[in-house]
Amino acid sequence: MDYKTHRSIRAYTEAPVSQEVLDTLLTAGIRASNTGNIQSYSVIVTQEEEMKARLAPLHFNQPMVKGAPVLLTFCVDYNRLSAWSEARGTACGHLNLMGFYNASLDAMLFAQNVAVAAEDAGLGYCFLGTVLYNLESIIHELALPRGVIPILTMSLGYPAETPSLRPRLSLEGIVHYERYSPFTPAQIEALYAPLENDPFYLERVRTSGCTNLAQLIMEKEYPAANYMHLSQEIMRILQLQGFEEKYLKRQNPSSVEA
Amino acid sequence: MDYKTHRSIRAYTEAPVSQEVLDTLLTAGIRASNTGNIQSYSVIVTQEEEMKARLAPLHFNQPMVKGAPVLLTFCVDYNRLSAWSEARGTACGHLNLMGFYNASLDAMLFAQNVAVAAEDAGLGYCFLGTVLYNLESIIHELALPRGVIPILTMSLGYPAETPSLRPRLSLEGIVHYERYSPFTPAQIEALYAPLENDPFYLERVRTSGCTNLAQLIMEKEYPAANYMHLSQEIMRILQLQGFEEKYLKRQNPSSVEA
Repeated sequence: MDYKTHRSIRAYTEAPVSQEVLDTLLTAGIRASNTGNIQSYSVIVTQEEEMKARLAPLHFNQPMVKGAPVLLTFCVDYNRLSAWSEARGTACGHLNLMGFYNASLDAMLFAQNVAVAAEDAGLGYCFLGTVLYNLESIIHELALPRGVIPILTMSLGYPAETPSLRPRLSLEGIVHYERYSPFTPAQIEALYAPLENDPFYLERVRTSGCTNLAQLIMEKEYPAANYMHLSQEIMRILQLQGFEEKYLKRQNPSSVEA
Repeated sequence: MDYKTHRSIRAYTEAPVSQEVLDTLLTAGIRASNTGNIQSYSVIVTQEEEMKARLAPLHFNQPMVKGAPVLLTFCVDYNRLSAWSEARGTACGHLNLMGFYNASLDAMLFAQNVAVAAEDAGLGYCFLGTVLYNLESIIHELALPRGVIPILTMSLGYPAETPSLRPRLSLEGIVHYERYSPFTPAQIEALYAPLENDPFYLERVRTSGCTNLAQLIMEKEYPAANYMHLSQEIMRILQLQGFEEKYLKRQNPSSVEA
């Protein structure tokens, strides 16, 4: 498999992932670009059956959690940086929304390099965004201290399935030249037709009881109520993990700390 | 060059990037995993000199902006999804912090696949996180409508330099097994010594007038005051681009919309 024809793999063989292979993937991860070489991220490796059993319900019992030999949970991490900064007579001023957001972007560049390296090594993976739905419990299970927040989990192993390639929007739907040009209703119809008419999605819509794919996504799979709740959860977890509360308060721009 | 030995390239030859090569990179990007295949991202391609000149000061006149044949600005995009949802009799409920955050993660997986493909094709790139420092002006220049927010820019072209590999923390500093184990002061010293003693960083600290690398990062390059200000800017820009204000207000969890 290749990153240009990526398929998410949800079923794995019994073959273990060796420490050598794991180190190769993680080393590829840390070579990804990151802001100022600050490396404000960590990875928690889960291999013990007991830990998988504890994490499984927090990922809505998706079978990959217990079925994969390895889980990698990518985290924003300002704990290590804070310790280093304090040892050097300064303070890490990144425990706020910007710090969390920026570190999250860097952690995803890291994660995708791990993903590319995994496929290069003959492994398959699936990203589990479900971390964001149970942040507090996952923080507890992984013993994440102040400044550390999990943001994405990857299940990893040797593929025991060969799924077909999912359709994507064409480049015309994603890429704009020089300035953004919003789509006309006719263009929207043309862009989404290949997805809407793909047998995989036709079947999912049919069995869901929904009228169409947009309704399935927006009302069943990723509904507004969940997203509103999770928006508040992100803020609550930031505070729980020691990120400052100040940014939640509206300030006059001129009163920003100098 | 290879994603496992990535160097950021900041100087480019005059050679243009062909449409065929650009399409190859962007096609690799859309193959990256994304939440529910929703593809809540877009890319703005900048190739015109006039546009580069307008964007350059918004990236603090970093020479890559005018010097690269191509800039790619990766954006969170709920404009297209909202149009599609409305055409299908439903609504996109993702214009909130969770939607912005989750789409940002997906956009970074996209961006890193483009980056890997760029190096595979013999190109070099540098990510510019400066987008986040001038969001409103960049939104204006790129004509980004409601629901669209730029989050990262990449400068792209054929390399005209061969920089050395930057040091990174060892895997021991980044990877935890089963549960997070915070570092002792002695471990922090050992972890950061290779970076602190690297000639590149020794020289930067020396010329900066700072006492050490942590102070350079936390007080000069990425200071708390900037991060506090940008934390507020993210919230302001979300509202400016039509993301709902509700998530900023504390609600009793039981009053979350069903």
